[in-house]
Amino acid sequence: MPVLPYTLQKPLPVPGFKVGSASCGVKSPDLKGKRQDVTLIVAGVPAQAAAVFTQNAFRAACVDLGEQTVREHATNIRAIVANAGNANAGVGEMERVWSQQLIELGAEVAGVEPNQVLSASTGVIGEPFPIERIRETIGEASTSLREDNWIQAAEAIRTTDTFAKYTSRQFEANGKTYTITGVSKGSGMIHPNMATMLSFMATDAPIRAEVLQAILSRVADVSFNSISVDGDTSTNDTVYLLSSGLGLGDAELQDVSAFEQALSEVAIELAQLIVRDGEGVTKFVTINVSGAENETQARELGRTIAVSPLVKTAFAGSDANWGRIIMAIGNSGSFIQPDKVSMKADDVLILKDGNLHPDYTDEMGMRVFAKQEFTLTVDIGLGDASAMVWTGDLTHEYITINAEYRS
Amino acid sequence: MPVLPYTLQKPLPVPGFKVGSASCGVKSPDLKGKRQDVTLIVAGVPAQAAAVFTQNAFRAACVDLGEQTVREHATNIRAIVANAGNANAGVGEMERVWSQQLIELGAEVAGVEPNQVLSASTGVIGEPFPIERIRETIGEASTSLREDNWIQAAEAIRTTDTFAKYTSRQFEANGKTYTITGVSKGSGMIHPNMATMLSFMATDAPIRAEVLQAILSRVADVSFNSISVDGDTSTNDTVYLLSSGLGLGDAELQDVSAFEQALSEVAIELAQLIVRDGEGVTKFVTINVSGAENETQARELGRTIAVSPLVKTAFAGSDANWGRIIMAIGNSGSFIQPDKVSMKADDVLILKDGNLHPDYTDEMGMRVFAKQEFTLTVDIGLGDASAMVWTGDLTHEYITINAEYRS
Repeated sequence: MPVLPYTLQKPLPVPGFKVGSASCGVKSPDLKGKRQDVTLIVAGVPAQAAAVFTQNAFRAACVDLGEQTVREHATNIRAIVANAGNANAGVGEMERVWSQQLIELGAEVAGVEPNQVLSASTGVIGEPFPIERIRETIGEASTSLREDNWIQAAEAIRTTDTFAKYTSRQFEANGKTYTITGVSKGSGMIHPNMATMLSFMATDAPIRAEVLQAILSRVADVSFNSISVDGDTSTNDTVYLLSSGLGLGDAELQDVSAFEQALSEVAIELAQLIVRDGEGVTKFVTINVSGAENETQARELGRTIAVSPLVKTAFAGSDANWGRIIMAIGNSGSFIQPDKVSMKADDVLILKDGNLHPDYTDEMGMRVFAKQEFTLTVDIGLGDASAMVWTGDLTHEYITINAEYRS
Repeated sequence: MPVLPYTLQKPLPVPGFKVGSASCGVKSPDLKGKRQDVTLIVAGVPAQAAAVFTQNAFRAACVDLGEQTVREHATNIRAIVANAGNANAGVGEMERVWSQQLIELGAEVAGVEPNQVLSASTGVIGEPFPIERIRETIGEASTSLREDNWIQAAEAIRTTDTFAKYTSRQFEANGKTYTITGVSKGSGMIHPNMATMLSFMATDAPIRAEVLQAILSRVADVSFNSISVDGDTSTNDTVYLLSSGLGLGDAELQDVSAFEQALSEVAIELAQLIVRDGEGVTKFVTINVSGAENETQARELGRTIAVSPLVKTAFAGSDANWGRIIMAIGNSGSFIQPDKVSMKADDVLILKDGNLHPDYTDEMGMRVFAKQEFTLTVDIGLGDASAMVWTGDLTHEYITINAEYRS
């Protein structure tokens, strides 16, 4: 059961984009016609593109090809083609060939050139990629293209996700309303062979690729790079952002601050939905680190707390075990002055300048840690920088899934 | 149940040292007379001393005091006094006072000066330290002093340890047989308020403090710093090494290589015993990283693999999930060339130069991962340096203990 106490709003269409999907039986021929597993996003005009990719040293071929295409053709992208069910990773020399073939199929059904197409794959690692099964029915993806098909796009990239992940935001600029819609998939590096984090976002805001890329890099740091289910990233992690605005003839936005704000909200929600869908997760915890010397230090410290098995099991047990959080901070490798560290759980002050607050009682902490969602605030008293990281708890169900899952 | 398929040998007496213990009811008055919880190690002559301490930014007062005493009096140490049941940590201003009082009590019953005494504490964090209960019965520790009391010393520093940890080695130098005996405690950062790693080692090898310190620092890296139960270290972690040889009148050893080898064996066994006693651990896995550019890179990479929850749950499930190990390597932050990485489980070759070996089958991997003990060898093909790290698996029992344990 995901930690999802709200209903997702229907995603908004984005002018210039149509979305379709196909059922190709990627994972197994039995699934053909039963579940959608190929997503096609087509821009009716040349789109500006930006991307961020996995930091893992082992990268799938689709990541290498995607990076190259964005580098060389970022101002003229026309489609994204993505599949679930097979990561096309760890399969040796054919990996790059199959990845290129998927791009060519996407280009063909979208009616564009291969160098205008970005791809992504997610699913089982180390299995031959079923390019022929995809060839047979990928046509469905182009015949189903519609502006309001974003939920289907989100459905068709699911692997172990228990729900489809999508969201939209709108903002005003130059007297016009612009839209950002995005989808994501991932339930943490949980089912390890199916755990890729993918997100595709589209907007009609008229912004050049170069500017889009700078914004996306910043936004990815505070969203997709600020979640932790168990600290691992996969070979295929990919985020694509496309913009149709300039292609549609709008004048370039000079002030992009409203766009960056709206994109952050979209990306943060898409990232948080991945944490909320972490296997075995029963808690959604925001870790807010402040008083750091810089944002990188704050984020790293937040991540250190977020990945500690002792902290995550304390969350699972609704145990306000501040000693474990102190240990994690002390182990971060960051410069820490113990007598400057303060800590709160929601509004309950636990530590003030390194000392247990005299009014604090275990019962006060327990009331917060018993909640399904709460915020842990750590101030290290060294500077003005802060960062937020989102994480879940570590439960029996996590062990069950991961110890008993067969690759 | 620990992973301990062998019987520990009785530790050997070390000339120049006597060991005693007392039952002071440190954790609770009810335990007075029921379990030993104060250890006293006394050198009959001035001992040379070396120490290594926790890297955690939050350090208990006993660590600060121990570090200071070793810095100022390393050639004239006469005793170690240690208690289990209360870490004397996280208790504010009294912490240093209580720590100093424990040292003074140890000095009094050992008949030496306080600046000749090193101390260590382990147990519950954040509770007042019961110095008066210790004062009442610490005398037992001096009346029980004997050369062959090392098992009692190991017993009296246990907290959540399911067995007492000790070992000895002897080596020849200058035509004489010298002894090293050590004890340790710790079952990983598992019961977080009782999880301190302590080790005390003693030898009659005649070596100056300065040389001892250099050797101990190297040895700690390949032993106590090369184990991982869940990646966290505590506020009180302490390793002390004392040598009586020069005090007993032996000529200083010029060639210390046999000593360093023997000390490594002692420290590695004491460290491995901590992994073997990790709560919920059912597997003991050696991670052998080779082909690194330097030893630090090799050890860090080994630790990255060793702490990955996905890798540790794969161990628990006897699942030869090499994909998870690849992910952990790729996430290490180390420079990695994927096409140079090879991997073996015991003698079974899984990956060769980044490719799955054609002869490898899942069944071959499973046969190794099903064993209670096995070695995972990863060669990253970049250089000649190597390191070994020891770890356990991540099981349901770990979650049960840590989610349900109340601080």
